[in-house]
Amino acid sequence: MRVLFLGDVVGAYGCELLEKRLRTLKKQYAADVVVVNGENSAEGNGMLPSSVRQIYDSGADVITGGNHSLRRREIYKVLDEEETLLRPVNFHANAPGKGVCVLDFLRYCFAVVNLQGLAYMVDHHRDPFAAIDEVLAGLDTPNILVDFHAEATAEKLSMGFYLDGRVSAVIGTHTHVQTADERILSGGTAYLTDAGMCGSFDSVLGVKKELAVEKMRTQLPTRFENARGQGILWGCVIDIDEKTGRARSIERVADRVE
Amino acid sequence: MRVLFLGDVVGAYGCELLEKRLRTLKKQYAADVVVVNGENSAEGNGMLPSSVRQIYDSGADVITGGNHSLRRREIYKVLDEEETLLRPVNFHANAPGKGVCVLDFLRYCFAVVNLQGLAYMVDHHRDPFAAIDEVLAGLDTPNILVDFHAEATAEKLSMGFYLDGRVSAVIGTHTHVQTADERILSGGTAYLTDAGMCGSFDSVLGVKKELAVEKMRTQLPTRFENARGQGILWGCVIDIDEKTGRARSIERVADRVE
Amino acid sequence: MRVLFLGDVVGAYGCELLEKRLRTLKKQYAADVVVVNGENSAEGNGMLPSSVRQIYDSGADVITGGNHSLRRREIYKVLDEEETLLRPVNFHANAPGKGVCVLDFLRYCFAVVNLQGLAYMVDHHRDPFAAIDEVLAGLDTPNILVDFHAEATAEKLSMGFYLDGRVSAVIGTHTHVQTADERILSGGTAYLTDAGMCGSFDSVLGVKKELAVEKMRTQLPTRFENARGQGILWGCVIDIDEKTGRARSIERVADRVE
Amino acid sequence: MRVLFLGDVVGAYGCELLEKRLRTLKKQYAADVVVVNGENSAEGNGMLPSSVRQIYDSGADVITGGNHSLRRREIYKVLDEEETLLRPVNFHANAPGKGVCVLDFLRYCFAVVNLQGLAYMVDHHRDPFAAIDEVLAGLDTPNILVDFHAEATAEKLSMGFYLDGRVSAVIGTHTHVQTADERILSGGTAYLTDAGMCGSFDSVLGVKKELAVEKMRTQLPTRFENARGQGILWGCVIDIDEKTGRARSIERVADRVE
Ligand SMILES: [Fe+2]
Ligand SMILES: [Fe+2]
Ligand SMILES: [Fe+2]
Ligand SMILES: [Fe+2]
Ligand SMILES: [Fe+2]
Ligand SMILES: [Fe+2]
Ligand SMILES: [Fe+2]
Ligand SMILES: [Fe+2]
Repeated sequence: MRVLFLGDVVGAYGCELLEKRLRTLKKQYAADVVVVNGENSAEGNGMLPSSVRQIYDSGADVITGGNHSLRRREIYKVLDEEETLLRPVNFHANAPGKGVCVLDFLRYCFAVVNLQGLAYMVDHHRDPFAAIDEVLAGLDTPNILVDFHAEATAEKLSMGFYLDGRVSAVIGTHTHVQTADERILSGGTAYLTDAGMCGSFDSVLGVKKELAVEKMRTQLPTRFENARGQGILWGCVIDIDEKTGRARSIERVADRVE
Repeated sequence: MRVLFLGDVVGAYGCELLEKRLRTLKKQYAADVVVVNGENSAEGNGMLPSSVRQIYDSGADVITGGNHSLRRREIYKVLDEEETLLRPVNFHANAPGKGVCVLDFLRYCFAVVNLQGLAYMVDHHRDPFAAIDEVLAGLDTPNILVDFHAEATAEKLSMGFYLDGRVSAVIGTHTHVQTADERILSGGTAYLTDAGMCGSFDSVLGVKKELAVEKMRTQLPTRFENARGQGILWGCVIDIDEKTGRARSIERVADRVE
Repeated sequence: MRVLFLGDVVGAYGCELLEKRLRTLKKQYAADVVVVNGENSAEGNGMLPSSVRQIYDSGADVITGGNHSLRRREIYKVLDEEETLLRPVNFHANAPGKGVCVLDFLRYCFAVVNLQGLAYMVDHHRDPFAAIDEVLAGLDTPNILVDFHAEATAEKLSMGFYLDGRVSAVIGTHTHVQTADERILSGGTAYLTDAGMCGSFDSVLGVKKELAVEKMRTQLPTRFENARGQGILWGCVIDIDEKTGRARSIERVADRVE
Repeated sequence: MRVLFLGDVVGAYGCELLEKRLRTLKKQYAADVVVVNGENSAEGNGMLPSSVRQIYDSGADVITGGNHSLRRREIYKVLDEEETLLRPVNFHANAPGKGVCVLDFLRYCFAVVNLQGLAYMVDHHRDPFAAIDEVLAGLDTPNILVDFHAEATAEKLSMGFYLDGRVSAVIGTHTHVQTADERILSGGTAYLTDAGMCGSFDSVLGVKKELAVEKMRTQLPTRFENARGQGILWGCVIDIDEKTGRARSIERVADRVE
């Protein structure tokens, strides 16, 4: 089976890029299933029912999240009800929503787990290593993709090696910049430190560059607006042997839209 | 002029990789000058006179540093005396060493600036935006490479856009994982969020993966050892029009050593 | 001269406590001048023209701030125009407002400096040690109080010792809990690590305890409301020899309102 | 029953202060049991068998720790073997030692729990709220003191309120500066945000002030040495009704040694 994974969708423009390009990409990469991180898909941050709807309508099968998943209360009901809309599984037990889903493709099943890192993140969630151990103990399929939403490269690589041979893929998100270190680890797990984002390329993580520079330079409160212009859809395609759950290949995706 | 830049050299094994491969890479990419970040070149962290010597002997013209530059007191005298050994320019005025050097190639000059970011870094150094403004005001050549040693992608992209059109290249270091976002910004500045490292590929930032995973998973004190095995030399080559200082191209380098 | 200093005023209830008690305290402690930290005086965080007005009307001569000073844009104009409304002096040069004021009491002058720390604070402002050196070089009076708004006890004590003999008092704010380490340092500077706050005593830093506990326990987004009930006005009184600027005494104030 | 609690003992000088004063203090406050935080009792940081021995020999019944508990490998065996030497209970299950002990006084039992906070702490340990719930479920006595080793006042107050009515006392440690907010919470739990330290008073958290100031001011690597001179033993005495576990009173202790 082939999975197309796309990184953090940023704002209305990111959603438009998906509308425009996702079906083509799915075909081009012969993907059976599409997983998209949507934690920043609402304008102004977080997720809204409308941004999530737009991502599903563009062809996503599963939507993952991250540290911004719970920013907007309007999404809580959808997080509770929609089986394939995930937030990090190591959030507190009281958090709305869930962090794991299993898709049944008849011939095989495919599980997606959303997990969040701790290093340099503001909030203090449950240890992701203990959390993923518990999740894996409860899963019946060998075909498992983990979206590890984290900042530090050391934490992401550590999770990759920790899960090597136990899941099909560990794909990082959150930094909005794609890394160039895709590989199949020795145990058969596909790994990429960060998938990157879907949004304006000529921007700072999707935000208008002038605003981001000014904020960074002065440390003064700044109202962010998302940029448009050249677009990028960053992600990867993983080819999984669905009988064993081992990855055969991982290829980076960087789809530029002028 | 063509500049070969290599990211954080990790330990004795990283130095050996340079010894083995740097001259070949320089030839292969027709580089006129070689800049290497050596902040982790000593075993156990930081830089030592011996590790710095080994990097120079392998063909480096300039060695930059970062948050680990001052870990070892043995290097302080060399930092003070060696013109082309840099530490971040925005360290405190009392710090040993310097953060800028200018190489005179007769037909043109080439300046290297080492700068450190603030986001998620433990120490609180001088604002890098104010610091680089001062440095640039004192430089006579348009051919300038900035090694921006920083963690957060937003801070690195912001620095890239801030310096666009004012320097030839802004190359990030510190995360030890190469990013795939190389580009020439609209003002003519070459940009890459992180060059990556030179060290063991099958490792966590150069450290033995078992040790790094255990530390990350348990948060218990762990003595790190560097890994060997498959090596990677990660960096980039920038082609600069030395009359204007504008970059013509930037190409990522990922030299695998089995 | 005698200075009454009160720590971070929290919300409408904190302002009410000042209205009710400040004139009495001023008389009780025979204070010549009153300095109040108002960074949290608006409901929901930051400062508003109305909360600042209420603090002045209650008898404050100078209002200082901190990391929340610029949360509300409505206060920017007042920060620019009102001579005795301060924000940390080591904010970026582009920030609205100023960080120093000098009151002329004919027989002597009295300066207040607002300064912010770096350790554990989210934003990266200018080095407070360099900033205060510059400020002091420009002040003509020996009677100087520094409100050092900072988190880490080590940074606050370091600033106290650094300024010992150069200012009359270094009083910490920001943690909202009064410390019990008031003293006159060997050079004659009065010091207190944290003055504490003015707000509801049976609360978490002024916030309703149930909400704060839930947020801390679950790390989930929580809308904070300020508590009422028992009140506390925490601060200190410093007696300064206005001919030398040396402090004669520092006494903690903890005024409970049932 | 009456408990004397003393905060973080700093280095050889802190241990000497205990030798000199602890028995007198125990008598003076008519304490039945003495609990001392010893996480910094070794010169140069952490705990050593010798520093722990010195604290026991001075009269401590229980020694607690914190983020520095595991700095020195020499203490691991003692942590495993000594029933009354604690490290934070929410460290990883693989950590040496334990975080709870119960003393049997025949007429009643008394439990001490060592717990660590997360906010602003470098390491990511288990959620202290979940951890303490589990610990309390396993304790048979109502007489329970929690040493909550944490930085942020909000986290410490939240823990106090969370445990109000469930334990006899929540006493904070780690900042090395005593706070002035001792109180009996409405459910009968004694609370103090920070007990303070045992070490040199004219110092930065026990460290020579010149060294600490220089480090803070320049952010350059600095080798710390502990200060001597005037000493302080900071802590508190809690009077507990051992039939109910409710605290009758809490009084701050600040014993100055010239
Ligand atoms: Fe994101
Ligand atoms: Fe994120
Ligand atoms: Fe490095
Ligand atoms: Fe680094
Ligand atoms: Fe405050
Ligand atoms: Fe504050
Ligand atoms: Fe301590
Ligand atoms: Fe500590």
